[in-house]
Amino acid sequence: MKKVLIANRGEIAVRIIRACHNLGLETVAIYSTADKNSMHVQLADEAICIGPAEPNKSYLNIHAVIAAAEVTKADAIHPGYGFLSENEEFARKCEEEKIIFIGPKASVIALMGEKARARETMQAAGVPVVLGGDTEFTDLTSGLAYAKKVGFPVMLKASAGGGGKGMRVINDEKEFPTEFNLAQNEAQHAFNDNHMYLEKYLPNPRHIEIQIVGDQQGNVIAVGERDCTIQQHHQKVIEEAPAISLSEKTRQKMFAVSIKAAKQIGYVGAGTMEFLLDDPEHFYFMEMNTRIQVEHPISELTSGLDLVELQLLIAQGHSLSFDQSAFTTNGFALECRINALNAGKVTSLHLPGGYGIRIDTALYQGYVIPPNYDSMIAKIIVFASTRKKAITLMKNALDETVISGINTNLDFLTQLLNEQDYIENNTDINWLDKLTKLE
Amino acid sequence: MKKVLIANRGEIAVRIIRACHNLGLETVAIYSTADKNSMHVQLADEAICIGPAEPNKSYLNIHAVIAAAEVTKADAIHPGYGFLSENEEFARKCEEEKIIFIGPKASVIALMGEKARARETMQAAGVPVVLGGDTEFTDLTSGLAYAKKVGFPVMLKASAGGGGKGMRVINDEKEFPTEFNLAQNEAQHAFNDNHMYLEKYLPNPRHIEIQIVGDQQGNVIAVGERDCTIQQHHQKVIEEAPAISLSEKTRQKMFAVSIKAAKQIGYVGAGTMEFLLDDPEHFYFMEMNTRIQVEHPISELTSGLDLVELQLLIAQGHSLSFDQSAFTTNGFALECRINALNAGKVTSLHLPGGYGIRIDTALYQGYVIPPNYDSMIAKIIVFASTRKKAITLMKNALDETVISGINTNLDFLTQLLNEQDYIENNTDINWLDKLTKLE
Repeated sequence: MKKVLIANRGEIAVRIIRACHNLGLETVAIYSTADKNSMHVQLADEAICIGPAEPNKSYLNIHAVIAAAEVTKADAIHPGYGFLSENEEFARKCEEEKIIFIGPKASVIALMGEKARARETMQAAGVPVVLGGDTEFTDLTSGLAYAKKVGFPVMLKASAGGGGKGMRVINDEKEFPTEFNLAQNEAQHAFNDNHMYLEKYLPNPRHIEIQIVGDQQGNVIAVGERDCTIQQHHQKVIEEAPAISLSEKTRQKMFAVSIKAAKQIGYVGAGTMEFLLDDPEHFYFMEMNTRIQVEHPISELTSGLDLVELQLLIAQGHSLSFDQSAFTTNGFALECRINALNAGKVTSLHLPGGYGIRIDTALYQGYVIPPNYDSMIAKIIVFASTRKKAITLMKNALDETVISGINTNLDFLTQLLNEQDYIENNTDINWLDKLTKLE
Repeated sequence: MKKVLIANRGEIAVRIIRACHNLGLETVAIYSTADKNSMHVQLADEAICIGPAEPNKSYLNIHAVIAAAEVTKADAIHPGYGFLSENEEFARKCEEEKIIFIGPKASVIALMGEKARARETMQAAGVPVVLGGDTEFTDLTSGLAYAKKVGFPVMLKASAGGGGKGMRVINDEKEFPTEFNLAQNEAQHAFNDNHMYLEKYLPNPRHIEIQIVGDQQGNVIAVGERDCTIQQHHQKVIEEAPAISLSEKTRQKMFAVSIKAAKQIGYVGAGTMEFLLDDPEHFYFMEMNTRIQVEHPISELTSGLDLVELQLLIAQGHSLSFDQSAFTTNGFALECRINALNAGKVTSLHLPGGYGIRIDTALYQGYVIPPNYDSMIAKIIVFASTRKKAITLMKNALDETVISGINTNLDFLTQLLNEQDYIENNTDINWLDKLTKLE
């Protein structure tokens, strides 16, 4: 492996280019016509335009990306996140064209990409999944029996449902008959269908994910967990590591099941198992991301590992040089995603620096943010000895940041960090949506 | 302590302002008329102009700085490095005016400021100093006896000497008579004076320094050593931590004597004991810097400690919360000092970021570097698991850096990092001067 094409743009392309250069690998940037002045184009050793601004015609255009790799004689492709990073067809095409795809096998991407199959696979590997959902019923007796099997509270749903119709949270056995009848009536009226099903209800779950790394020799390690509970409209806003809501026992259990499952599916590269955490001791598999994630730097700061470098080394056949027992983390890392609220020119720019500050961005003063892509323009990541110190460091870092010419979410992030519930970790995945609805 | 006046400018003022804000302390910047658009002025809560561009009339003007603290009701002053940071009179004036001087007592600054007294004090505390130099002689027998006492090799010098006249490196006892006679003759002819003296000769010493921190309760810890061997005209250029030339035994011995000496003089705050290292086992005290140093970030990265925060906490009476036995370092940190070779406007600026990169600077795009002050405009600090990786990271970081509109030493630094002798740590404090003379 000598030359890596980075099939992405923005901060993650810059991140990958740097990691390649640190390993002495040559780099090829691809870019759309909207990105000709982008930083990743400037930092790579070579750059090749692959199409117009529309993602479908450039960064998502499998044919164009593969052709760019062939023209530039790149022997590997790093897909970053988003775009083609979890596209089975793209990974398979790379395999066919004998280009190293920096990630797991196409078949593994496919398996984890189908959420139902992924869930079954994980369950078979002993990973807890949210209970229920696999049985329909029309009568109270069967429903109650199933609810007792799944365990209260449960979320009763209409099989034909949608829009909340026929949906009820039922807290215990006593409530069940009344609520079942009401919900089934509602379902009957709304959908002309009285089939019901139910799932275990998680009233205020947290989003906890385990970062794993597997090599081609079959070794898998878990390099810590991340707490990504602070989400708005299912978009992560603030991420933390470690997750202070976990007991050490649960952390170790989450590591163990993640490692076991990853080994079982022959996972190679960096990947993330996403879980819902119901209480400090109970977690349920949601899905697996078969790529590097936006929030990977917080795991790098707490573990000391360079995850993108590990991806590159593993793709070259290197095996992991340490095992789980040797793995430790220290300190506390926090990431805020800085989003642009509109496209436009960054007329002045000052990003923080110094003790405990890491910046991952492709911004520069004078850069014109195109309207075509993801709104995330920078990640501010801080590292300190405690969560409290990390929050203070982040607040001051945000306060210092100047991004003129466009609107950003800087003030919004500062507000969040000042919320008492956030400070006290008294949050769940619905917290931010509720908070912003109230305001 | 509520409000801190930062009696400095540039990157160190920015560094201190950030540390104050992280502790919830208000900040006052002082500035000369040449610095009205400087970053430290923009980041501080308040700023006060204390005079014209000439350092003597502003940053070195004790009266103006004290007056600024009084006008702004600052209850503490952080002096940074350079300027008034090791000025006994300034520290004493702060003591008189009941302003907390963030550093050791004026009497300790005075003691370490007089190099002969400092050397005697250290020697009395059991710290090794370069042997010799305290006895004159005119006859061969006395000279040889003294040389044997000091130990070969020695540097023989004319008491009245200068310009290298009467100066000889003598490697052993056999060489001594001939060399002594030649040197004494030379001295007699040059200065009409045949008094000679000698010192232990250190043929190719390294510069190793120990970072210590002492609290008001009398606790002192050593937070690691730094290797600052790469110097040009006595100016440090590249600094590293840890010092790979040290054996663990010598490192611990250097820590122990530094701690002992600092305790003996009642040292409070952050300070640095500078040593020459003759070989892996022999070190000699040179001087003590009674302030924070330019290169402190490399110790922060390897120790995890925020040294400026510690200075601020100690000045408020906090005691150190851990002792030497709990102290560990990990990884490898490297700092390059980016210097401006001329004054002028920074027309475009791109500094590196991401994994392992720390930037301490007061630069911004559009900033006009004034001609009046130190040429150092930024510090790039990298952190990696090994020295080799840190060097690669630094080379790529330098490569990525763009500072347009002025000339800098970026290319020079890159050249140094590519020198085989540097890579192999085959250097001494004269290495860079010899290298640049050759070119």
